[in-house]
Amino acid sequence: MTTASSRPTTAGQPDCPLCDKQLENTLWESPQLRIIHVPDTPFIGYVRLVWRAHVAEMSDLSAPEQQTLMHLVFQVEALQRQLLHPDKINVASLGNQVAHVHWHVIPRWRTDPCFPDAIWAPSKQTPEHQAAWQSHTDALQPRVHALHEAIRQIPH
Amino acid sequence: MTTASSRPTTAGQPDCPLCDKQLENTLWESPQLRIIHVPDTPFIGYVRLVWRAHVAEMSDLSAPEQQTLMHLVFQVEALQRQLLHPDKINVASLGNQVAHVHWHVIPRWRTDPCFPDAIWAPSKQTPEHQAAWQSHTDALQPRVHALHEAIRQIPH
Repeated sequence: MTTASSRPTTAGQPDCPLCDKQLENTLWESPQLRIIHVPDTPFIGYVRLVWRAHVAEMSDLSAPEQQTLMHLVFQVEALQRQLLHPDKINVASLGNQVAHVHWHVIPRWRTDPCFPDAIWAPSKQTPEHQAAWQSHTDALQPRVHALHEAIRQIPH
Repeated sequence: MTTASSRPTTAGQPDCPLCDKQLENTLWESPQLRIIHVPDTPFIGYVRLVWRAHVAEMSDLSAPEQQTLMHLVFQVEALQRQLLHPDKINVASLGNQVAHVHWHVIPRWRTDPCFPDAIWAPSKQTPEHQAAWQSHTDALQPRVHALHEAIRQIPH
């Protein structure tokens, strides 16, 4: 655990796409973090939580900061389950491309492009599956709007 | 959040490979969870934390249970950083193949088979890279043993 006094710099990094910028698709924000939805993805309902300070790893945060962030991650997960009824939720903090703490919270369906593999695995969809999946995601759009509205209403 | 009284069944499921079985490679255990190391993987230092009760999602756990589990996840991450000095840590709870809560905590290096992609993406290693990576992992073995010993010593 890194203490506040010994932690790496958290100042905005000019080259970091997650630092000090207006993030598009922001649904909720606090002085510590932002929750954004991911557009233009086949993984409908996909949400990211982005820690505001520039730290690379969860163990760079204090225990209370970790708890604040994870509590929100699991609140988002609970809302996705309640409103979208997916077959599974996937939760991950990778940051290999952008080493600034952010969490992926991804509803999964047995019929999605990669299930049961991770979304980072190659798609195994046939054209027929792709058409059926598109119909499924089109039908889910009203519930995704309800999810976004519910995230906007998370108490601060 | 599911309360203890309303949560899904947590009884051992006969078909679940993570339920009620002696897990090989167990480094640490408590009445709530087990920490195991992952052998036979190119991703050296890879550790999993397995919740003991059969629940599918983190939001099936109470807030104190979530905190207990995540605190240990980030303790393992901190030990991996301290003892192995990887370039990044990846943390994920997927469970698409086995819907019983477990966390992957994976040290990553820029020279590993998949970096900067997730470990579930296809390997992009050339034969030359593969040989260099093998030398790197061979050299790391003593530090991996130190990591396993440090995990065994995590206070209960």
